[in-house]
Amino acid sequence: MILWHDTLIARERAQVDIEDRGYQFGDGIYEVIRVYGGKIFCLSEHLDRFERSAREIKLDLPYSLERLGSLLEDLVRQNQLTDGTVYLQASRGAAPRNHPFPEKAVPVIVAYTKEAPRPMSYLQDGIHTITQEDIRWLRCDIKSLNLLGAVLAKQAAVERGCQESILHRDGRVTEGSSTNVFIVKDGELRTHPANNLILHGITRAVVLELAQELAIPVKETPFFVEELFRADEIFVTSTTMEIAPVVSIDGRKTGSGHPGPVTRRLQEAFEKRI
Amino acid sequence: MILWHDTLIARERAQVDIEDRGYQFGDGIYEVIRVYGGKIFCLSEHLDRFERSAREIKLDLPYSLERLGSLLEDLVRQNQLTDGTVYLQASRGAAPRNHPFPEKAVPVIVAYTKEAPRPMSYLQDGIHTITQEDIRWLRCDIKSLNLLGAVLAKQAAVERGCQESILHRDGRVTEGSSTNVFIVKDGELRTHPANNLILHGITRAVVLELAQELAIPVKETPFFVEELFRADEIFVTSTTMEIAPVVSIDGRKTGSGHPGPVTRRLQEAFEKRI
Repeated sequence: MILWHDTLIARERAQVDIEDRGYQFGDGIYEVIRVYGGKIFCLSEHLDRFERSAREIKLDLPYSLERLGSLLEDLVRQNQLTDGTVYLQASRGAAPRNHPFPEKAVPVIVAYTKEAPRPMSYLQDGIHTITQEDIRWLRCDIKSLNLLGAVLAKQAAVERGCQESILHRDGRVTEGSSTNVFIVKDGELRTHPANNLILHGITRAVVLELAQELAIPVKETPFFVEELFRADEIFVTSTTMEIAPVVSIDGRKTGSGHPGPVTRRLQEAFEKRI
Repeated sequence: MILWHDTLIARERAQVDIEDRGYQFGDGIYEVIRVYGGKIFCLSEHLDRFERSAREIKLDLPYSLERLGSLLEDLVRQNQLTDGTVYLQASRGAAPRNHPFPEKAVPVIVAYTKEAPRPMSYLQDGIHTITQEDIRWLRCDIKSLNLLGAVLAKQAAVERGCQESILHRDGRVTEGSSTNVFIVKDGELRTHPANNLILHGITRAVVLELAQELAIPVKETPFFVEELFRADEIFVTSTTMEIAPVVSIDGRKTGSGHPGPVTRRLQEAFEKRI
């Protein structure tokens, strides 16, 4: 079953209009939310971000966050999902194609679940990455459906046998194509500040909290691509990748070439949370 | 009737899957093509650009351009369209959601027609505009479905009673939210070069050809926002707006406040072409 507007229906019954603005303009927003042991992880954080994204593109959500939350919980229950993800999307709805917002369009809410195990091999052995110029728009803080830049960057990584692209603007590392990027240098954690150039990742925020609990110093400042190669440890974070160590970049071994001790401590603390 | 893959069907019968990559990633491309007197204007130029956009995002079009062209001509004929537009879109197709290209997905081609008169009042009286920071990605030369930046810019114009936003990066004018921008200064035409920062408009190219025929000197170099206010004439070009004079920017009258003589000459030459 999938959630379509506010009703659970069979997946095949949901039909998107060819003039849905999500389809023609990417005029919509989304969230990917983790389910561990049948429970939705960080649901309110995801819903808050969903609401913020909606507000930033002036899309009026048809339901309150409480209502949406209970619809998603119902979806997970009905599908008997134990470990996996919930994908939630809202588009501005269907209207004759024209750039400005339509006067009468009903936003389309769709959500569905997917079974997915935790990414154990990535967590244990680390991932391989490449660097890529960040060519995306200047509002990456909005979790919008305009993902072609991220898609092309991820595809470039996959074509070179890697799992992620680390993006940079003029040499400054922003984030991964679907992750946030952290380095550890002399015991200190560094990551790009949560401004308009990166997505404000939920897992990123959890890691910053965990670092505080573990008394690991944190600096939210941009760093350069060269600093990746001088870092003691590197990891990326996301809802689906959790805290994944980076063991190579552009074919060069990074840090020790193995997941580092600070990354391990954060992974263990994260494990306790979930 | 609409074109759906390679068949003409009733509009309601076309149904987009919720996991069509066009809907979830904006992973697709499009064209808007003008029909004058039942004839498709600049069809081969639009199809060439469509193919180029596809190539740049590594999307394999399922049909040759010849085939696509005759399918569109058939669509126009069947719908007995005299004056209007053809909207043509290709998305990478439906596949379980994941950033990298799916191995097995069938691109979805959709095209439909719309009746639309020529924009006579814009052509005669000009349009009102605002300036906006250009926050779009760095591959605006690809006519992709990632249009949220353009949508938000157009909406900002509409909310201030205007018809278009003129975009700039750090003060350098790139283009409009759905048009290319030209200025006339001391008898010379200037517009942003056709690089990665602007769409290579078909009407833009026609205007450059007409300028050559009319012996109007042209410089394809970027200019600054301040130069807009010192220009003798300003106009924007697009498939639907044709050659539309700009008579105000940010509430300030530009040029004489009326369509200028060079703009008029280009409009007349364009009229002869169509």
